[in-house]
Order: sequence, then C-alpha cells, then structure tokens
Amino acid sequence: MIKIKGGVTTPKDFRAAGINCGIKRRKRDIGLIVSDVPAVACGMFTQNRVKAAPIIVSKEHLTKTIAQAVIINSGNANCCTGSKGLKDAYLMTELTAKALNIPKEDVLVASTGIIGKQLPMKKIEAAIPQLAQNLSREEGHHVAEAILTTDKVVKEIAFKIRIKGKDVSIGAIAKGAGMVHPNMATMLCFITTDVYITRRALKLALTEAVERSFNAISVDGDMSTNDAVIALANGSAGNDLLDKRDKDFPVFCKVVNEITEYLAKALVKDGEGATKFVRININNAKTIEGAKRIARRLATSMLFKTALYGQDPNWGRIAASVGSSGVIFNPDKLDIYLGKTKVVKGGSNYVKDKVALRRLFKHKDIDVTVDLNAGSKDYHMWTCDLSSDYVRINANYST
Amino acid sequence: MIKIKGGVTTPKDFRAAGINCGIKRRKRDIGLIVSDVPAVACGMFTQNRVKAAPIIVSKEHLTKTIAQAVIINSGNANCCTGSKGLKDAYLMTELTAKALNIPKEDVLVASTGIIGKQLPMKKIEAAIPQLAQNLSREEGHHVAEAILTTDKVVKEIAFKIRIKGKDVSIGAIAKGAGMVHPNMATMLCFITTDVYITRRALKLALTEAVERSFNAISVDGDMSTNDAVIALANGSAGNDLLDKRDKDFPVFCKVVNEITEYLAKALVKDGEGATKFVRININNAKTIEGAKRIARRLATSMLFKTALYGQDPNWGRIAASVGSSGVIFNPDKLDIYLGKTKVVKGGSNYVKDKVALRRLFKHKDIDVTVDLNAGSKDYHMWTCDLSSDYVRINANYST
Repeated sequence: MIKIKGGVTTPKDFRAAGINCGIKRRKRDIGLIVSDVPAVACGMFTQNRVKAAPIIVSKEHLTKTIAQAVIINSGNANCCTGSKGLKDAYLMTELTAKALNIPKEDVLVASTGIIGKQLPMKKIEAAIPQLAQNLSREEGHHVAEAILTTDKVVKEIAFKIRIKGKDVSIGAIAKGAGMVHPNMATMLCFITTDVYITRRALKLALTEAVERSFNAISVDGDMSTNDAVIALANGSAGNDLLDKRDKDFPVFCKVVNEITEYLAKALVKDGEGATKFVRININNAKTIEGAKRIARRLATSMLFKTALYGQDPNWGRIAASVGSSGVIFNPDKLDIYLGKTKVVKGGSNYVKDKVALRRLFKHKDIDVTVDLNAGSKDYHMWTCDLSSDYVRINANYST
Repeated sequence: MIKIKGGVTTPKDFRAAGINCGIKRRKRDIGLIVSDVPAVACGMFTQNRVKAAPIIVSKEHLTKTIAQAVIINSGNANCCTGSKGLKDAYLMTELTAKALNIPKEDVLVASTGIIGKQLPMKKIEAAIPQLAQNLSREEGHHVAEAILTTDKVVKEIAFKIRIKGKDVSIGAIAKGAGMVHPNMATMLCFITTDVYITRRALKLALTEAVERSFNAISVDGDMSTNDAVIALANGSAGNDLLDKRDKDFPVFCKVVNEITEYLAKALVKDGEGATKFVRININNAKTIEGAKRIARRLATSMLFKTALYGQDPNWGRIAASVGSSGVIFNPDKLDIYLGKTKVVKGGSNYVKDKVALRRLFKHKDIDVTVDLNAGSKDYHMWTCDLSSDYVRINANYST
C-alpha cells in the first residue's frame, strides 16, 4: 500500500472537471466525475428523515449495480424543494447523460449547500456540457474544489496497491466542515478505483470503512440532509475479479479504511471554527453501544467543547457529560485521562500537577480517554472544539 | 391565585440568610433556608450517573419525610471529590444542625459551581453559625443571591392561594444559566410553603410540575451533576390536611406549576449568552416520546441555535434537525411555522415573503412550531440561542 499524490482521477480511465456556474460568485461550484467505461457502483446516504432530492435520485439509480458518472454541485442542497427540486435532480442526471451519451440511470447526483432554495437550473444546464468538454485526467483537483462549502482546504487522497498481481489505484475526495455527526455528517465523499471487483465486495468494504470513519466523527452534532458516500470501481486495472472471500480482499478493505479515516479526520480538522483535534476513547465499557453513546454525548457537549476551545482545564465537564449519557455505569470506577495523564481516579479528582494539566489543554491534538472499568468494549471517535468562530460562521450562513 | 412580591420566606415560619464566606471574592456564596417548625419535605435530583456529594446526602436524608433546613453553597459543586467530599457534605448538615439545634437528618444540602475541587471547609465552618444568627423573614432575597453562579439575575417568585378556607403562601427561588437540559438542568430550586399537606401529595405536585417545566428546557444540552429541586411544606397556614384526592389539590398543583414554569423560563431567559427566548412546539406527533425526542434534538442543534443568534432566516436547519432526531415520520407531511407564518408545507419551502421572514427572526421571543401531521400528541419546550457570548463565558469558566 503506497500513498501517492492524487485523487479521483488517479485510477485508470477516470476523468473529472470542476468549474464555476454561478451558484457561488467566483469559486468552482459544479463538478463531474466520469469513468470512461461502466463501473460497479454503490453508495451510502444520510439517515435523516428529511432527504434532499439528489439523495432520492441517486438511491434510485443505485438499484442498478452500474454507474458511470457523478454530477455534483455545491452552494445549494436542493433539499425541501418539493416536486420541482426532485424534477431538477432528475434533470441534472439527464443533462449529464446526454452530454456524455450514456443512459441517465448511469448518472448519480449529489448537492450540498443551503437548504430550501430551488437550484438555478439555467446556470446548471449551461454548465453541464462545458463540464463534459473539460473532462480530463488532470482536473481531479478541480472537482475536489467544486464540492466544498465552508471547508477551508481541499480533501483528496490516493493509494496504489497490488491486487491479484496487478497494480490497482484508488482515489477519493471529500467535503465537510459543519453539520458533521454520525449517520452521517454533512459530507460528500467520492471514491474511485480501477479495481475489478464484485458489487457485494465493494459494498462491504465501503460499509465497514464508513462505520469506522465518517460515522465516528462529530463537529457539531447536526446531521445533514445531503450526505452521500459513493464508490465507483471500473475494473480498468485488469485484475481477476475480486470478491469477498479472496485473500486480497482484506488488502483492498484496508486501503478503503485508510482513505476514509484520512478524510474523516480531515473533515474534523477543517471543522467550522475548529482549533483543536480531539480523539475520544471510551474504554472497557460493558457494551459497544454504551461506549458509542457516551462517546457521542461527549463529542456533542457544548461545555466540554468550549472548555477545549478556551484551553480551560475543566475536566469536571468530561465527568458530567459522561454521566449524563444515559448509560448505566459505576461512577466510583470511572477513570479519566488527558493524554496519558490520569485526572480522575475512581470518580474523584486525581490531578497532581495543575501546571502540567494546563499544559495538556494547550496542545492542538488532544486525547481524552474515559475508562469505565466495566467490561472489555472500546470505541473511539474524533471531534473538535466549539469556538466563537463556529458561532460566527453559522450565525451568518445564509445571509 | 395571586402573585405577590416575595420568595422562600414569604410563607409563614420560614426564615433565610445569605452571606459571603469566601468561596467567591465578594458575592454571597452560602445560604440557609429554615422552617421554624419541622416540615414535610421532598426532592427531585439529577439523573446524572456522576452525582455530587450533596445530592447523595440530601437523598439519604429525604428517606425521612421531615426536614427543617437547607444549607446551600455556590462556587463549588463538591462533585468528583471522593470520600473527603462526601464527608464534607455530611459535615455541612451537621454544622447546620448544631447551629439550629435540630437533628442533622433534618438538614438538606446543595452545592453548585465548579466540579472537582474540595470545599474550603474552614470558611464554610465559620459561616454556618453566622448564617444561623442572620436568619430573618426579610433575608429571602439574600439566599436567592447566594445560590447564583453565572446567572445575571435573581430568580424568585411567590403566590398566595386559598386552600380549604385558609390563606396559603408558596414561594420559591432558583438558579441556573448553563449546563441546562432535561433530567435535569444545572439548576437548583427551593420551594417553601406553609400549606399543611401529606408528603405523597407534595411529591405528586412537585413531580408533575418539574416534568412540565424544568424537564422541558434546554440551554446547551448539558446535564449537571448537582441538580436539585427541594420542597418544604411546614403546615403553618393552619389548613386541614391536604391530600391527593381533595378538591383543592388541583389548586395547589396549579400554583406549583405556575411557579416552576416561571422559574424554568427565567432560567432559559438568563441562559448563558442568550439573546433569544424560543418556544418549540412539536404538534400532531404519533407519540409523546417521539415529540419529546424531536423537541430535544431541535433544542440542542448548534446550527439552529447559531442561526437564531445571527437572526439568519435559515429555516432549513429546523427541517434538517427534526429529520435527524431518529423519529420516523413522513417528511412529505412536515409543516413548519415561525410564529404563525408557515415556512415549510408538506416538506417543501413555503416562504412567500422573505422580508417578513427576516423580520420574524429579529424578534426576541420566537415560536417555532413543527407539525408532523402524524397523530395527536403535542409537546413543547423552551430554549435559547447559541451566541459568541456562550462560548466566551464557557471557554474561561474555571480560570
């Protein structure tokens, strides 16, 4: 497994483009990813009951196993837009299909941005043929830019691996900075690969990777209406068909895990207003569900997150938050660590060195470990702090 | 039912005092409420698994039906303080009992403030006899001050009612501004009354009132380790014993409801950094549990709360938050109102007048109604916005 410079156009026979179509003032706001040959495709989507129109359309198109293109816009979520919004999402796939001369069911669609506004379809209609013309092996970076909203940095990654004796590439891009929480975040992620793989194997690799990455991060506890992770595998690497029971399948899973974990962490690091990157470990819980619940409670505690921001060594808020998760545990067995320093032992203050404690809170990367001493299940997730900048960014988002 | 000026010393035979003992620099930080005669007592306490020492002691003392005094300090929560903390909480009841010449089991104790620090017991030991000496009918306001932490205003209220032909008074004080969320908030509330009542009736009235008030507010979704609502009824009004089946019992319940609702709203209005007071109505849900879950999700949505703060008419975040609650409903039947203006109809944007919408977001008091059109259950709760001031206050709390 070798990490290489690249993104969604690193795997063979993938091309992409990203331009500005006028949804945003100047920045790229529409992108296209295309495989030159039909690809096995699968996706995972938001669990929000309120789903954006493109989610509905992409899910429908993924009832087939094959797809060849993904059209994506940022700056407008096409959500809460009624039948007109749904018609527009279909239209985006039709226009893309026409420009590429492929069946419309082979086109997937994703949108991200503000909720409740109709898409400017004239602009999108004009942009799609231009995107098709611009498609190139070199424009992978442009589509990575086109999907961003409040993100400060582009998020892309690529790897090379050997599968069944052949060189296989896998690349991905993602966006997300706010409305980030498990199941899933306001995030989009597109993964391309030239591996030749069965759909069930691709789906399994994706599901497990998402659970361990995008479902284990929280910026602000808010779940979006537009989340989508889509994978396309076009088989151009020429390897023998890879399936779930092959000995090389774990190799493929490992690289998908690497990619989604890298992107998930990149999302948190780029979290709106974030100044800290925090890994929360819940150790020795009775059940994995309990550990998850505590981790999510802590990851969304405004008081914990503001203390992190203020570098205020107020570890009491960790104890309070953990206790309020609804999970039953014995508080007299609760240990809490900051980094490797124990601050709570058996439910009581165990801080020996206040100066050292204060120093721990000044780190940019912070590990918080909650040991329940109740069983053997561990869970971890990644989160960030809650800063004045988060409030500023989100108090004036739509205006 | 007549609202009168007053607080915990308004009912007959109650006295109080509040002074500074040195936990805080200058402000009052320790208070005492005493009934001159033994009173029927009951309490409700935090459901946090991590409980402060005074919670453990007060719960133990309330296994008896009678109490006569409550000693309260602010500035230090006496939580995560181990066996020393527990010993100190007992000691506070013992010292108070000694100063008042009553049994120590008749004294309840409450603390609020920072978690994880040992109480300065020398200061408290010196203060308690002084409090006992200062007790007066006029010092009710002083104890209301002594229990505050980040609160900006004192919260007290009193009513006069007729019960079984006698004038009965009921008064209360509360504190709370952050770490406020159902079951219960970081809040203390002390209710005194001179009604003659059975303990089971007092308990029933209190439980119902707390469910409809303190359990229906959220400032920041964080649940404290120290919450306590304590009621003392000393019978000095001289009415015939009031029990659950008496026709005057609903009269008493109504006034307890009024009092707790007033104080709950006062907590939210005084919420850390709050600039808006928001009533969330979840209407026509299939189940009350579903309605509650949606209300709580919305009340803790950072994106919704920052939009409120920024007066940004980003109603899409309401839809996204409601959809992410985990409750199953048909998004195509979802209606959302701001005040009386419908902004979402059948899951779609229904904003007719953007200028009017913007104006709605400028109000200080905002009603948000989510109509699921799925059943007949309604639930409401109160919350506030999330401002830069909230972050500022909480980023530097302990330092």
